[in-house]
Amino acid sequence: MKPIYNLLTLFIVYTSCAQQTESEIKAESPVNIEYTTELVVPDLNIAWGMAFLPDESILVTEKSGELIHFKDGTKTTISGLPEIYVRGQGGFMDIKLHPDYENNGWIYFSYASPEGEGEGGNTAIMRAKLNGSSLSNQEQLYKAVPNTTKGQHFGSRIEFDNEGYLFFSIGERGQRDINPQDINRDGGKIYRLHADGTVPTDNPFVNNSGAKTAIYSYGHRNPQGMTKHPETGAIWTHEHGPQGGDEINIIQKSKNYGWPVISYGINYSGTTFTDITQKEGMEQPLFYWIPSIAPSGMAFVNSDNYPNWKGNLLVGSLKFQYLERLILENNKVVKREKLFESIGRVRDVRQAPDGYIYLSVEGKGIYKIVPKN
Amino acid sequence: MKPIYNLLTLFIVYTSCAQQTESEIKAESPVNIEYTTELVVPDLNIAWGMAFLPDESILVTEKSGELIHFKDGTKTTISGLPEIYVRGQGGFMDIKLHPDYENNGWIYFSYASPEGEGEGGNTAIMRAKLNGSSLSNQEQLYKAVPNTTKGQHFGSRIEFDNEGYLFFSIGERGQRDINPQDINRDGGKIYRLHADGTVPTDNPFVNNSGAKTAIYSYGHRNPQGMTKHPETGAIWTHEHGPQGGDEINIIQKSKNYGWPVISYGINYSGTTFTDITQKEGMEQPLFYWIPSIAPSGMAFVNSDNYPNWKGNLLVGSLKFQYLERLILENNKVVKREKLFESIGRVRDVRQAPDGYIYLSVEGKGIYKIVPKN
Ligand SMILES: [Ca+2]
Ligand SMILES: [Ca+2]
Repeated sequence: MKPIYNLLTLFIVYTSCAQQTESEIKAESPVNIEYTTELVVPDLNIAWGMAFLPDESILVTEKSGELIHFKDGTKTTISGLPEIYVRGQGGFMDIKLHPDYENNGWIYFSYASPEGEGEGGNTAIMRAKLNGSSLSNQEQLYKAVPNTTKGQHFGSRIEFDNEGYLFFSIGERGQRDINPQDINRDGGKIYRLHADGTVPTDNPFVNNSGAKTAIYSYGHRNPQGMTKHPETGAIWTHEHGPQGGDEINIIQKSKNYGWPVISYGINYSGTTFTDITQKEGMEQPLFYWIPSIAPSGMAFVNSDNYPNWKGNLLVGSLKFQYLERLILENNKVVKREKLFESIGRVRDVRQAPDGYIYLSVEGKGIYKIVPKN
Repeated sequence: MKPIYNLLTLFIVYTSCAQQTESEIKAESPVNIEYTTELVVPDLNIAWGMAFLPDESILVTEKSGELIHFKDGTKTTISGLPEIYVRGQGGFMDIKLHPDYENNGWIYFSYASPEGEGEGGNTAIMRAKLNGSSLSNQEQLYKAVPNTTKGQHFGSRIEFDNEGYLFFSIGERGQRDINPQDINRDGGKIYRLHADGTVPTDNPFVNNSGAKTAIYSYGHRNPQGMTKHPETGAIWTHEHGPQGGDEINIIQKSKNYGWPVISYGINYSGTTFTDITQKEGMEQPLFYWIPSIAPSGMAFVNSDNYPNWKGNLLVGSLKFQYLERLILENNKVVKREKLFESIGRVRDVRQAPDGYIYLSVEGKGIYKIVPKN
């Protein structure tokens, strides 16, 4: 038996070391497209996140630290925000309504906070309620430590699963060698809390002495997309790879998603920083992009408004300035399409309760995807 | 100043000791009533609880230990129930859907369980999912101890508040002198858990050594009504008093509702068991019934289907066999009305998602309250 095992090992090592220079599945331009975009909220700068209220108004986070309420064609700046540390990729980031928002009024958002010891800031999660044009009932639910003046990799998307758990991502803050593989440190993690900010007693590391007990999975780089699968209820994320190797993952409790031990990316300098793309005990991504598209925002199409897109996954591309449509079969990407090429840096994508898909595009505003007439 | 204080004290003592023999507000028969009842689920025995599914079918708990799914005019008995201890007032009791049932499928129910040490049983809470005609994913979330063969005071209504917390009641199991005032013991309590059955870390007694940490309030007798106020989101309960002194309470964290130290009731023998109706550190009821109506089931009218009843509280009367309608102003009962006199022992009352009010009546079935034509 021995020789066969060796041969098998050799084969695995060989294939995993083969440096891929692009994805096997290329993103194609659609042959024809039945939809177009309509600018519904103009004049925004970097609208990082969007939330759609029951009265059809929209809450928009501007990375620079503004919360804008767009209602009946008018923008109102909402007061009552916490102090926000605006630097590099960080600032005021995602926003999400509680699943029972209509009853409890809770609005969740992520931001870089300068609170606590040390210069700089780190990612925090707060919930609050909207009272006219200001926030009330502010409760900080999480604040990553330590603060740092680094401007990279804050995360920080927010999602609820079907059980009402709050999930959010915090990137590794540019400290790949100390944060993502260490459960005693914040950064490079997906977190899970109860909606009130307390730690579920069955979180995976609650009994690990010294661990950050809010951690649900680790070994992440910089996840800026997170969404609930409309059928399975699973939490899907994507994250920025280094150069190549942006990933899509389905988040499972206690799992290690490998960064920086394994990756399909290379350093921006062109040198490889790791020779391996897989390792026992580390999850393989469901999909990876080579070259990187620099993904931000993520939504499944679930609505009857786009019959040909139903079940597809949409991902914003910051780098190539289009909306990527991924067609999946049995959790495998089988086709990729570039929608709305040259629209601009797509920062967020969401399907709203009205069944329409909205895109936030940097330097432009919020677009609605509508049928061509 | 001294004499004035003394006079005031005397006045308070005097009024609180005056034995009332009936409520100041009498229940009246309505002058005319625009509604009538229509039997929608016939041939039930003691249908303790009802839950209305999104497909407009109804889940009904029979106290004898059966879960019935009434759909398109047909009853199906659902399998997969836990072992149920049927004795006295106990058996299969309340049922409630998770607020996000459409996404997660969780059904919560209360029952007397014989599990664990000792003869008899005690109140338990389970959640499970409905798969065709059987339950799956059963998770027992709570089981009161110790078991006892006493047949009294199991509670046990279930409600969710707007934050997604699970509340339920457990009666004092006929042991008024040892259970309701002792937070180290189950019984005579309102409990609060996360929807997954874990104890919220900000429950009031989590840091009391030996305490049952799921307890949210104590000093209750036998609460068989619990409902969320549609405007404030507060949890309202009612409970059976001894003879006279049935109460309505709004549940507040860590509060002592007084049983058996204070009560407006008297023993069934006619002797008083407590001379006092109020005491510092114990909550006064929002309302109390003298004589007892033996309340079961509780619902606020919120629907546009009953314009004259909007904001009113409905309570079933087991003893006098009618539905009581309570008109409230600033959380005070200002008027009481007897609806559907002689309909039978009203065990449960709920407003369904269709906006109609349904009554479960012992030995008869489930009635819908509809406009007279
Ligand atoms: Ca990975
Ligand atoms: Ca009381």
